[in-house]
Amino acid sequence: MAGTDRHRPFIAEGPAIILVEPQLPENIGMVARAMANFGLAELRLVNPREEFPNEKARAAASKADHVIDGAKVYGDLASAVQDLSFLFATTARERDGFKQVRGPVEAGRMLRQRFTAGQKTGILFGRERFGLSNEEVSLADELVTFPVNPAFASLNIAQAVLLMSYEWMKSGMESETDTAFRGPQMEPAHKETLHGFFNHLEEALDVRGYFRPAARKEIMVHNLRSVLTRAGFAEAEVRLLRGVITSLDYFTRKHPRGSGAPEGREKPKPMAKKAKSEGDAQE
Amino acid sequence: MAGTDRHRPFIAEGPAIILVEPQLPENIGMVARAMANFGLAELRLVNPREEFPNEKARAAASKADHVIDGAKVYGDLASAVQDLSFLFATTARERDGFKQVRGPVEAGRMLRQRFTAGQKTGILFGRERFGLSNEEVSLADELVTFPVNPAFASLNIAQAVLLMSYEWMKSGMESETDTAFRGPQMEPAHKETLHGFFNHLEEALDVRGYFRPAARKEIMVHNLRSVLTRAGFAEAEVRLLRGVITSLDYFTRKHPRGSGAPEGREKPKPMAKKAKSEGDAQE
Repeated sequence: MAGTDRHRPFIAEGPAIILVEPQLPENIGMVARAMANFGLAELRLVNPREEFPNEKARAAASKADHVIDGAKVYGDLASAVQDLSFLFATTARERDGFKQVRGPVEAGRMLRQRFTAGQKTGILFGRERFGLSNEEVSLADELVTFPVNPAFASLNIAQAVLLMSYEWMKSGMESETDTAFRGPQMEPAHKETLHGFFNHLEEALDVRGYFRPAARKEIMVHNLRSVLTRAGFAEAEVRLLRGVITSLDYFTRKHPRGSGAPEGREKPKPMAKKAKSEGDAQE
Repeated sequence: MAGTDRHRPFIAEGPAIILVEPQLPENIGMVARAMANFGLAELRLVNPREEFPNEKARAAASKADHVIDGAKVYGDLASAVQDLSFLFATTARERDGFKQVRGPVEAGRMLRQRFTAGQKTGILFGRERFGLSNEEVSLADELVTFPVNPAFASLNIAQAVLLMSYEWMKSGMESETDTAFRGPQMEPAHKETLHGFFNHLEEALDVRGYFRPAARKEIMVHNLRSVLTRAGFAEAEVRLLRGVITSLDYFTRKHPRGSGAPEGREKPKPMAKKAKSEGDAQE
């Protein structure tokens, strides 16, 4: 990744992020950080209000100072976009003219296609309060607008850069649902496992007289199995639950005793047999 | 929209945003603003480090102070999630256990499905430096993680809330490519219009001897038409270009004159006829 060496040719890993007359150095820093979060590194500043490089920008960039150090400053927008083939302008409001308007998802994909084809692209972001002028917008190929709540439409530039950088990152992913790490595989357990669990549980309940009166047993078993089936437990989960049932089934609560009583459970009782009449069915 | 009236029942327009032990009131304000940008309004704070309500939070919220005013404070996480049916926990790092991991797009869609079905949902965000504890994560149903650059993985909470709120907004849109406003319809012009343009242009060029030598005319016309076809000009664009050709064709540059010369163009010349021999073909 490009470090603090200004003499190495800058490797752009995607669209150039171009800020037009940014007012606050802290915003420049936050933009750099948002870019780094999603794999972008090429920052261009057109006529920043405050001197640049700038310590406040570097501080706000947190660990993304390589983006700050690699940022280029231009006196005017036309100079900043000379080497680009395609340029998006971000805008919150409708503009006259012939320009197509895209949402960020579509814009991300279009940028990715051009990047893959070897084209240099860029995205323009305007001033903190005023955005881009119509003249600046006219230098762009197309517009991007964010699907904000019209009652609260203003995004600050670091947020706008974050959203576009995020969509850029997503556009390069095989699948939108990919994540850096996955949870365990959780497909439902095989019926053999599930039915083994039912048998285990139902037997432990039966000997305790749970399925009473006898006339209701069938429907009670049915309901219990429905609940435990709909949950869609995975193999590992069923194993865990069988351990729970075993604990409840084999052990009893410790009887309160005087001091000196050993910690922990009583010895396990043998698995209760039907002969223990508590579970006897009544007609 | 819920205003500053704390006595009105709070209408949640989507998942509750739950911040666990937020440290900086400014971050709470920026979270409120990010929520408002994308149509969320229900903010819950678990044991915020600084007294809340808080003027710094309100100031950072900018115009989203209705979110600040409606925010509820809880002493512990369990209390903050009692009324919810489904809870996501945001996390940057892998966690042990049985929890499914989703990306933000998928999480947004899952939240939308449940919202449509009338279920109350929430999203947990952890402390600025330390995120969520394993115990806090265990109260959630599933995890969400953002597709960040592993070298620069840390998002601040306002950014994480922004991304999830954005995906929430998108999940409710008919189509991901919808935008609040559109550019003009830009389907390519009918061939009739395009060919009319070609005829107009080619005639104006022909009389000026552009298509020379005669043996090259056919290929020159072919190439010119290819260029003007591939551009895919729309009806309105062709009209504009025909006006450009007309201007170039009918008028000449103003001759430099002394003071008093009228501004603007000379009188238009009649459309040049083939008789004006400049355009005569040469074999």
